[in-house]
Amino acid sequence: MTEAQPVPHVVVIGGGFGGVHVARGLRKANVRVTLIDRRNHHLFQPLLYQVATAGLTAADIAYPIRKMFRRQKNCTVYLADVLRIDRRARRVFLRDGEVVTYDALVVATGVTHDYFGNDEWAEHAPGLKSLDEALEIRRRVLTAYENAEREDDPDARAAWLTFAVVGAGPTGVEMAGALAEIAKKTLARDFRRVRPEHARIVLVDASDRVLQGFSPAMSERAHQQLEAVGVRIELGRRVTTVDDDGLSFGSDRLSAKTVIWAAGVRATGLIATLATGTDRAGRAEVTPALHLPDDPKVYVIGDAAALQQDGEQLPGVAQVAIQQGGHVAKNIVRSLAQAPQTAFTYKDKGSLATIGRSKAVAEIGSWRFGGFWAWLVWVWVHILFLVGFRNRFVVFFEWIWAYFTYSRSARVILEQPFKTVAHRDQIPEITEAIDNKTDAAGETTP
Amino acid sequence: MTEAQPVPHVVVIGGGFGGVHVARGLRKANVRVTLIDRRNHHLFQPLLYQVATAGLTAADIAYPIRKMFRRQKNCTVYLADVLRIDRRARRVFLRDGEVVTYDALVVATGVTHDYFGNDEWAEHAPGLKSLDEALEIRRRVLTAYENAEREDDPDARAAWLTFAVVGAGPTGVEMAGALAEIAKKTLARDFRRVRPEHARIVLVDASDRVLQGFSPAMSERAHQQLEAVGVRIELGRRVTTVDDDGLSFGSDRLSAKTVIWAAGVRATGLIATLATGTDRAGRAEVTPALHLPDDPKVYVIGDAAALQQDGEQLPGVAQVAIQQGGHVAKNIVRSLAQAPQTAFTYKDKGSLATIGRSKAVAEIGSWRFGGFWAWLVWVWVHILFLVGFRNRFVVFFEWIWAYFTYSRSARVILEQPFKTVAHRDQIPEITEAIDNKTDAAGETTP
Repeated sequence: MTEAQPVPHVVVIGGGFGGVHVARGLRKANVRVTLIDRRNHHLFQPLLYQVATAGLTAADIAYPIRKMFRRQKNCTVYLADVLRIDRRARRVFLRDGEVVTYDALVVATGVTHDYFGNDEWAEHAPGLKSLDEALEIRRRVLTAYENAEREDDPDARAAWLTFAVVGAGPTGVEMAGALAEIAKKTLARDFRRVRPEHARIVLVDASDRVLQGFSPAMSERAHQQLEAVGVRIELGRRVTTVDDDGLSFGSDRLSAKTVIWAAGVRATGLIATLATGTDRAGRAEVTPALHLPDDPKVYVIGDAAALQQDGEQLPGVAQVAIQQGGHVAKNIVRSLAQAPQTAFTYKDKGSLATIGRSKAVAEIGSWRFGGFWAWLVWVWVHILFLVGFRNRFVVFFEWIWAYFTYSRSARVILEQPFKTVAHRDQIPEITEAIDNKTDAAGETTP
Repeated sequence: MTEAQPVPHVVVIGGGFGGVHVARGLRKANVRVTLIDRRNHHLFQPLLYQVATAGLTAADIAYPIRKMFRRQKNCTVYLADVLRIDRRARRVFLRDGEVVTYDALVVATGVTHDYFGNDEWAEHAPGLKSLDEALEIRRRVLTAYENAEREDDPDARAAWLTFAVVGAGPTGVEMAGALAEIAKKTLARDFRRVRPEHARIVLVDASDRVLQGFSPAMSERAHQQLEAVGVRIELGRRVTTVDDDGLSFGSDRLSAKTVIWAAGVRATGLIATLATGTDRAGRAEVTPALHLPDDPKVYVIGDAAALQQDGEQLPGVAQVAIQQGGHVAKNIVRSLAQAPQTAFTYKDKGSLATIGRSKAVAEIGSWRFGGFWAWLVWVWVHILFLVGFRNRFVVFFEWIWAYFTYSRSARVILEQPFKTVAHRDQIPEITEAIDNKTDAAGETTP
């Protein structure tokens, strides 16, 4: 193609797994790519619970989007907040007033928390979608122990030492497991007046089993492992109130100063501005080619897309977003070449959820197992990832190395601590990379 | 000593270098120690500028105070905010209403920023005393480049790419050097529309030379090194206004969207509640034995203390606080044994300031040198520290190790981003470990 004719402009909204794979997939295409995200970093959300539980630092799982594409000259990165999309005029409106026009648009904005119409619960029960939320949860968890240490009243102390996790999908299960570990091991010897091992971790779900996306056998296995680490599991519990002091289930009450929300998700408000069909979680319905039914130039991928395969909504996991991102890049190239776009098929690589040290469940094809071996697989997969992500494992060398390579490991813009999550997140939020369906697909309700 | 008689209660306010060394020094004494800090972490402030410039993560230079003392059974750690001290009744009042009585009290609350009566400048020009301030400065610096990337108006873009540092003490010099490095090296290739190397770093000071605490020769050396890395130095400049768009010096104006305050310090408000004599920076005057002239049970150490040696106020550096902390611990033990308290003498181990990669100045005794060798000394001293601090160098092993030792590297409670620093910091803030006087001693005025 010659430079004479204008180069088509592809706008990608969202720098999560889906968005970055679209941009990457277009690196050799004769297009201009503009990747827009309201945060400056790509986030490995599957390990976000480790940041919330102080196992990893923010920089370990976040990487500057701008740096990912520094050598991809056809890609420009915008740190900007997208307010709405005007499909008729092919324009995207940014909060700061700038208007960006596109020839092709990819919406990969993920999902945000769903408090089932009770957005006021958000301040009492933060969810786990972004770094600032993770750091806020960390702050609340660690502060709860500090307050318990100085509390004389036994009931009040018990409330400070009670941690409720709402939603028993992979994120909820991993949070509960990690919280139990902190209580039992990490903090055990640090306090004088409280025995952190007396902390109560309560995992609440409205359904009849944990990890609904897994097989009943694996749910049972996870259930046993959770109880083994001291997590109290409350199933069939529908949350009716969340306030500063805890949860209500109808007339029942659970006093817990710390509540974490891992129950439901819904598409971000931006999807609504597409004026297209959505499912009840607000996800945009797309064709098998991943574009809107009436607009082959506008694609929606990842958690933000409602797409069924084998009669089942695709799970809200990184693998789906990654595979869809690569597929959309190909379809954009095909449509530029006037070739027909092709249908997307998801290849499920399996599901993993970890309960904690030496405890996990895995479903890989028909292969289902739990315990130490499943946990080893989990560690292996995630260490592999971290190595690839150029974090943590090279961090040892960076401190000296940085003096000569000028690389910096902590280039993450931390935002204001969590005020309210409702309607707040417009970045792609992907759950466990090879993780299962429940919590991100919004099928668990408290 | 027998357990029959009540064990004396020593209360230490502040978990910085001074406070932790008092508590450590009392580990074998027959006393109860209560160490109170409003943050849960001890901070290695000399490397804080590295966090502000994204070279290190918060967890690399912060360590949970509670964990430092987990094995020192006679020490209890409080996460609490001290409002005032009642010397008559020997009581300390905490914000949450609790009252702590003491037999001996050590105040090691350090200093906060001094805006010379213009506290409204604080929001426009954050200082660098705490992790949250460092992360706020990082956020502002990185965001400035992002905004410049999207700014079409050349003047506005220039303002986004202008970074003013007020105060040319060690902290100001190190910030300016690191900002120049970020502009030239770290971000250079990441942007499409702006050339980060066009960023202007302006170092402003009211005095006639940088690093006033050093000898004129070393000041000149540092001056040359700063200009070599592209820092513009404005001496004899008295700041008259700080606002959202920059600085005024009388009728002169500098447009800078990012302003960092490293100019002056004063003692925290808590010192005033001691109702004792202070110097003009609000530091409590103490006897050579480090207690108040009229109260041998109340000690003030570190930056919060006004003490002269050889006719000169001791510098506000970690070494002074560390040596004073150990000395006070001994004096407390002596006074319990009815022995006379002894006078403190500061042993100056020298001064270091780094301008950046391969650039620094050093004064160790009569030995004065600059450039690469001074920088190597700086790196060596700080790497040694980080190793001792159990951070960064072991971080490589922690990720796997944590699964078996249950240790966690990131147990730092990050507070809300900087709103206003004035009257805000009540934790000890110590500057460059073997660093020099100017900026922490409050002698530089803009």
